[in-house]
Amino acid sequence: MLTIFGSIALDTIRTPASILYEVLGGAATFSSISASFFSETGIIAVVGRDFPDSYHNTLKKYINTDGLIKKKGKTFRYDGEYDITFSKRKTLKTELNVLRDFNPKIPDEYKKSEFIYLANNDPDQNIQVLRNFDNVKLSMCDTIEYWISTKKLSVIKMMKNSNIVAINDEEARLLTKEYNLVKCAKKIIEFGTDYVIIKKGEHGAILFHEDIIYPLAAFPIENIKDPTGAGDCLGGGMMGYLSNTKNINMKTIKKGLLCGSILGSFVVEDYGISKLLSLQKNQIIDRVKKYENMTQEL
Amino acid sequence: MLTIFGSIALDTIRTPASILYEVLGGAATFSSISASFFSETGIIAVVGRDFPDSYHNTLKKYINTDGLIKKKGKTFRYDGEYDITFSKRKTLKTELNVLRDFNPKIPDEYKKSEFIYLANNDPDQNIQVLRNFDNVKLSMCDTIEYWISTKKLSVIKMMKNSNIVAINDEEARLLTKEYNLVKCAKKIIEFGTDYVIIKKGEHGAILFHEDIIYPLAAFPIENIKDPTGAGDCLGGGMMGYLSNTKNINMKTIKKGLLCGSILGSFVVEDYGISKLLSLQKNQIIDRVKKYENMTQEL
Repeated sequence: MLTIFGSIALDTIRTPASILYEVLGGAATFSSISASFFSETGIIAVVGRDFPDSYHNTLKKYINTDGLIKKKGKTFRYDGEYDITFSKRKTLKTELNVLRDFNPKIPDEYKKSEFIYLANNDPDQNIQVLRNFDNVKLSMCDTIEYWISTKKLSVIKMMKNSNIVAINDEEARLLTKEYNLVKCAKKIIEFGTDYVIIKKGEHGAILFHEDIIYPLAAFPIENIKDPTGAGDCLGGGMMGYLSNTKNINMKTIKKGLLCGSILGSFVVEDYGISKLLSLQKNQIIDRVKKYENMTQEL
Repeated sequence: MLTIFGSIALDTIRTPASILYEVLGGAATFSSISASFFSETGIIAVVGRDFPDSYHNTLKKYINTDGLIKKKGKTFRYDGEYDITFSKRKTLKTELNVLRDFNPKIPDEYKKSEFIYLANNDPDQNIQVLRNFDNVKLSMCDTIEYWISTKKLSVIKMMKNSNIVAINDEEARLLTKEYNLVKCAKKIIEFGTDYVIIKKGEHGAILFHEDIIYPLAAFPIENIKDPTGAGDCLGGGMMGYLSNTKNINMKTIKKGLLCGSILGSFVVEDYGISKLLSLQKNQIIDRVKKYENMTQEL
C-alpha cells in the first residue's frame, strides 16, 4: 500500500482561456489519484467543514480516505494565474486555513505501508509522519519554495530521511544556490538521499542516482489547458507504479518515472483533475508504449 | 560530400567568468567542424582582409575551404553577453561588414554535393545557393530572428525548399505566432518541409515528421563554459552524420539528431570552438553510446 501525506486544496485557476473557482486540487489530490491507477493508495490530509461532499466522494472513488480529517474551519485555498505560455504561474493568494497546525493522525491500516510519499507539507510534519511507519521500503518527498525559504534545515533533514527527492528545477536552484541542474542534484544527493528527480515541467525531468543520470524528455502535448498538478501526478504516478512492483532497482525506478511523467502529460490536457477522472488504465499503458516507441532510436 | 553555406564570424563572447575577444566563430565554423568528424565537408562563406591566417589554417585542418572567399573589408563581427544562467544571451553588437551583399560562388567540386546545410544566411541567398546543386539528396536550413523579422516570406519559401528545418524554440514561436511547440512544428511542416527540428538549448530538441514526434533530452552537462554555437553543432553534426549514411530514413534521421546533439553537448564545455579542436571521433562515439545507455529504459 502507498500512503500519501499532502495538501487538499480548493484551487482557483486562472488561465488565458478561462477561470475555474475553488475546484478540487492540492498535491495529495493529484498525486493520490495518479497513484491509484497502479496501486492501493491512502491519503493523510485535512479539509475544512466547507469541503464539498461531492469532492470527498470523488476522492473515495479512487483512494482510501480514512486518513482524511474534516476539521472546524475552512479548507486550504490556492489562487493562481498562468500567463499565455502556461509555463509561468503567479500566486495571487494562499490561505492555509486548516492546514495550519494540522496534527496528522495515521490510521492503523495505513501503518503497514511500505511506500510513503510526502508531497509538499511542512518538512517537520513530514519527518514526524514518516516516523510512524516501520516497514518503509521506499519513501519520496517533494517540497515547495515556502518551506525552503522558511525551514531550510528541516527540508534538508527531510531529504536525508527520504529515499527519493523530487523537486522542481527552480526550487532545486533555490535550495542549493547552484544554477546548473547537475550541480543541484549532486548537492541534494550529498544531503543523504538515494535518488534525485529534478522536474522541468514541459521539458521533462532528470533522474540522478550515484553516478547515473537519466534525462527524460516530456511527452509532447499539443493542447495544454492547465498545467496545475503535473508535478504531483509525476510523483504520485511514479510511487504508485513502484508500490506495485516487486523489485526496486534502476530499471523499475526509470519505468516508474516514465509512468509518472505520462500521468503528468495527461493531467495538463484538461482543467484541474478533470482529465484524471475520465482516464482509463489502458490509456496510460498505451501512452507509455507510444512514448517508448517514439523515443526508441533503433 | 556536405556543403555548408553560413557565416564566419569574429565573436566577442562575454560570460560571467570571462570575456573572449574576436575568437573564430559563426554558424559555418561551428557546423562545418562538427560535420567534419563524420564526412567530407566544404563551406561557402566570406571573410574580410582582417581575417587571421591562423583561423583560416584552423578551418583548413577540418574542412574544404575552397568556397571561402576573402573580400575587401572587415570580417563579420558579433558581440554578445550571457547572463549567469548561460541560457540568455544579449546581443551587444552585430557588424555585418563583408556579409552584406555577399555574392556566393560555388566551387565546381562542391556541385556534386548531395547534402546541403544552409546555416543562417539571408533566405533569398540560401534559395539561390540551393539552386546550384543538381543532386541534392537532403537539405537542411536554419534561420535567425533577423530574417524572420525582415524577410518572413522568403524564410517560408526557403523552408518549403528544404527537407529539414532546424530552428530554435523562440524563433519557431516568432515565425508561427504559436507558443506551443507541437503547434509551431505543424505550421512549419505545412510550409512544405519534411522534417522539423525544434532546438531547445539545454533542454534538448524535438523532431517532427508526418505524425511522428521524437523528443530528445539533452545530454546533461555539469560545467557549461560557453553555449555559443551549440545549435550550429547540432545541425552540422547531424548533416555530417547523414552525409556518411547510406539510407535516409527515420532511424538514421533520429541517430543523426542524437549525434548532432552530442556535438552540441561537447562544444559548451569550453569557450568558442576550443572543445571541438581537441575532440576526437572516438570521444563522440563514446558519448553517443553513453547517452544511449543512460536513456535506455529496460
